[in-house]
Amino acid sequence: MRRVMIIMAAALVILAGCRPCAPKGENWKVVDGMIEFDVPAAEPGQQDMLGFALEPMDTVRVAFVGVGMRGGDAVARYTHIDGVKIVALCDLYPDRVEKAQQTLANAGFPAAASYSGEDGWKELCQRDDIDLVYVTTGWQMHVPISLYAMEHGKNVACEVPIAYSVEDCWKLVNTAEKTRRHCMMLENCIYDNFEMTALNMAQQGLFGEIIHTEGAYIHNLEPFWDEYADNWRMEFNQSHGGDVYPTHGFGPCCNVLNIHRGDKLNYLVSMSTESINGKALAQKKMGVEEYACGDHQVTLVMTEKGKSMEIQHNVYTPRPYNRMYQLTGTEGFANKYPIEGFTLREANLSDSLKCGYESINEHKFLPVEIREALMKAYQHPIYKEIGEVARKVGGHGGMDYVMDYRLIYCLRHGLPLDQDVYDAAEWCCIGELSAVSDANGSMPVRVPDFTRGRWNKLDGLKFYR
Amino acid sequence: MRRVMIIMAAALVILAGCRPCAPKGENWKVVDGMIEFDVPAAEPGQQDMLGFALEPMDTVRVAFVGVGMRGGDAVARYTHIDGVKIVALCDLYPDRVEKAQQTLANAGFPAAASYSGEDGWKELCQRDDIDLVYVTTGWQMHVPISLYAMEHGKNVACEVPIAYSVEDCWKLVNTAEKTRRHCMMLENCIYDNFEMTALNMAQQGLFGEIIHTEGAYIHNLEPFWDEYADNWRMEFNQSHGGDVYPTHGFGPCCNVLNIHRGDKLNYLVSMSTESINGKALAQKKMGVEEYACGDHQVTLVMTEKGKSMEIQHNVYTPRPYNRMYQLTGTEGFANKYPIEGFTLREANLSDSLKCGYESINEHKFLPVEIREALMKAYQHPIYKEIGEVARKVGGHGGMDYVMDYRLIYCLRHGLPLDQDVYDAAEWCCIGELSAVSDANGSMPVRVPDFTRGRWNKLDGLKFYR
Repeated sequence: MRRVMIIMAAALVILAGCRPCAPKGENWKVVDGMIEFDVPAAEPGQQDMLGFALEPMDTVRVAFVGVGMRGGDAVARYTHIDGVKIVALCDLYPDRVEKAQQTLANAGFPAAASYSGEDGWKELCQRDDIDLVYVTTGWQMHVPISLYAMEHGKNVACEVPIAYSVEDCWKLVNTAEKTRRHCMMLENCIYDNFEMTALNMAQQGLFGEIIHTEGAYIHNLEPFWDEYADNWRMEFNQSHGGDVYPTHGFGPCCNVLNIHRGDKLNYLVSMSTESINGKALAQKKMGVEEYACGDHQVTLVMTEKGKSMEIQHNVYTPRPYNRMYQLTGTEGFANKYPIEGFTLREANLSDSLKCGYESINEHKFLPVEIREALMKAYQHPIYKEIGEVARKVGGHGGMDYVMDYRLIYCLRHGLPLDQDVYDAAEWCCIGELSAVSDANGSMPVRVPDFTRGRWNKLDGLKFYR
Repeated sequence: MRRVMIIMAAALVILAGCRPCAPKGENWKVVDGMIEFDVPAAEPGQQDMLGFALEPMDTVRVAFVGVGMRGGDAVARYTHIDGVKIVALCDLYPDRVEKAQQTLANAGFPAAASYSGEDGWKELCQRDDIDLVYVTTGWQMHVPISLYAMEHGKNVACEVPIAYSVEDCWKLVNTAEKTRRHCMMLENCIYDNFEMTALNMAQQGLFGEIIHTEGAYIHNLEPFWDEYADNWRMEFNQSHGGDVYPTHGFGPCCNVLNIHRGDKLNYLVSMSTESINGKALAQKKMGVEEYACGDHQVTLVMTEKGKSMEIQHNVYTPRPYNRMYQLTGTEGFANKYPIEGFTLREANLSDSLKCGYESINEHKFLPVEIREALMKAYQHPIYKEIGEVARKVGGHGGMDYVMDYRLIYCLRHGLPLDQDVYDAAEWCCIGELSAVSDANGSMPVRVPDFTRGRWNKLDGLKFYR
């Protein structure tokens, strides 16, 4: 009798603690109806990187790892930036390095050291005359190279997405905090002229309180799948579910909402269609029957301050290119795709901006003339400074140049960078978080606070000058 | 000892069934991480209304309940429809009835019976010479009037949304199944020329398999809040959370996806911003501090066949009017707001449609000339039939007339109506379901199957002719 009672009591204890129907992952569990990922403990001596800056550098000594599609363009752009020394070039394939050397030679630059092969990037990171490692390889190599570079005392700038998994995002944060090195993701769309102008308008209060944002990466990649070395992009998407490429749409919206600079991402839910077009491509190109990335994915994120954010991903179906970029505020609205437009209250427009219109309709886009006047009046100071040069150098209409210019400018002036390692982690963790939500019937997933509670330390986003 | 054991055994049974952290509502519980609403048992003798039709009526005897904003317009439109006898007019306020009588007189129609006051609609429903009760009151009265009318042997056509709560949706379904009366919601946007043309293109396969749809009701109501009798609209939104007005955006998308005609709605997640502008309005107009409806709400719905649907609601902030209406297919794309456009594969376009273009870019909207040619070539047969008249009679650009025309046409020909009671329930239940998801951290909510398992009985949407 006594034994039966003990067994029953033990069963009681177990049952009281368990959640019979809650799924569980390797590194997450369900808490109060929400999926929560494990948070690694910080090591002693880790210091947050909020507002972090290094001593000013007179010349920034740069090394490029991965000089194929994106990297080759980057090398060319850097020949237009003052105060840079291009120290080394690296790629898996030596012919690509040769081509990048040719770019330097054509621009009258001295030859850089060449690295290639499987371990070229490691040798490069071991040099002691590099300030910045600029990573533009396939996505699969972003994390190992970025970590290794920081561990070898280098600052890192890495193409998007710098990571996919929550675990890797934490590794980047922890390594930056331990090594006290910059780890900036090369999110270029935050530097697009429209996004920068809208950010400026938002920061000056024209939209009132921004309550909802939308961003996307909708880009039919059908003509491009053959261009990625060793098919790395399709291989990544074939084996990874969720929004695998969130940063172009999400980054600019996080900036407007001051994420980890006064607000923070709380939780998300995500929903994906099946893979139909993606799977058909992979059957043909890889001979596989499974494809993890759905054709169209939508993710909704809720912030601490009650703002909602939407992100979409679709690189598979015939649609016009679209990053959405939409800001809904209590006093106004900005929209980038498929047509650029603003809706603002008349009271918030100065007479000079009204271009002679007697009354403004708050239920329509402002007339084109007023939009143009607004774009001019609220052009971001950084564009006023270098917009002309950026357009000439090019790179996605100039925004790539603005990004590179800003990175070097901040390093040379000893300023905090525009994008810190928390941005990189927050924007990229959407990958795995959305995959897990989608795979579990769109269950809500808590977004990790990569600042470990310090999301309110900085007061708003600032591009230092 | 024995008593202790019994208590512990009882506790075991209770604990084994409970989910410690799962929230629970009055009429729902959490099952496998998903909120599920209770399903009422069907009464003996209930028969499904799928494909239901009555005997042809030579003349349809119509009575209007609520002849203010929408109802007054409806009376005027019905004077342009053949085979209709307007039997009775009813409103809470007699002066509105008088105004509607004047509309009839001006059109050379005989006077109808007049009803007014709190119980006017009951007296009207008790008449024995009415085939169709057309309900255009404030939302709060839709359900009681529709139920009462059916219980008194009348067919019902009721403005959107016919209901808000899951319980009321079931009441409508059960009452229609018991009384064998039509219960059609007056969702007019499914009859818009663009939506009808796109539906026709979709049914002919131009977009391939449609995998994702978007719809919305984004309409800044600032100038209109004073126009609703007794402030009914604001009072409703003040006391109801969730997407309170989903049908204009959601209905046309459900049609394209053949919901309960081969596919079904499985679950949804919803996310809303706080109420800022709505609350400010209500403070001023109603003197209250709480406002249930958020300023901007986004809801995602997953179907049985793996298609995702998005619905947005925002009637509070300065934005251009937008119902979104977007179809993403494996072979093409349709977009209505802010600009109408299509993206299609060249192979799916006949030479005559290419208008002399040598090649079509599958990453951009088709040129305007091709869009126009498509709109003409795929104009819906119903628009070919009565589009001209519809434009002349008007009502939201003609779609209201098409809706009325179709309702009367189907009744006179003894055909199933375009919208059945399951459409009404499916489109409207989004109201309470989205509110409950949002209030519980965007937890997924299972969408009730109002057909009780018969969602695959009909093979695709058909507008009978």
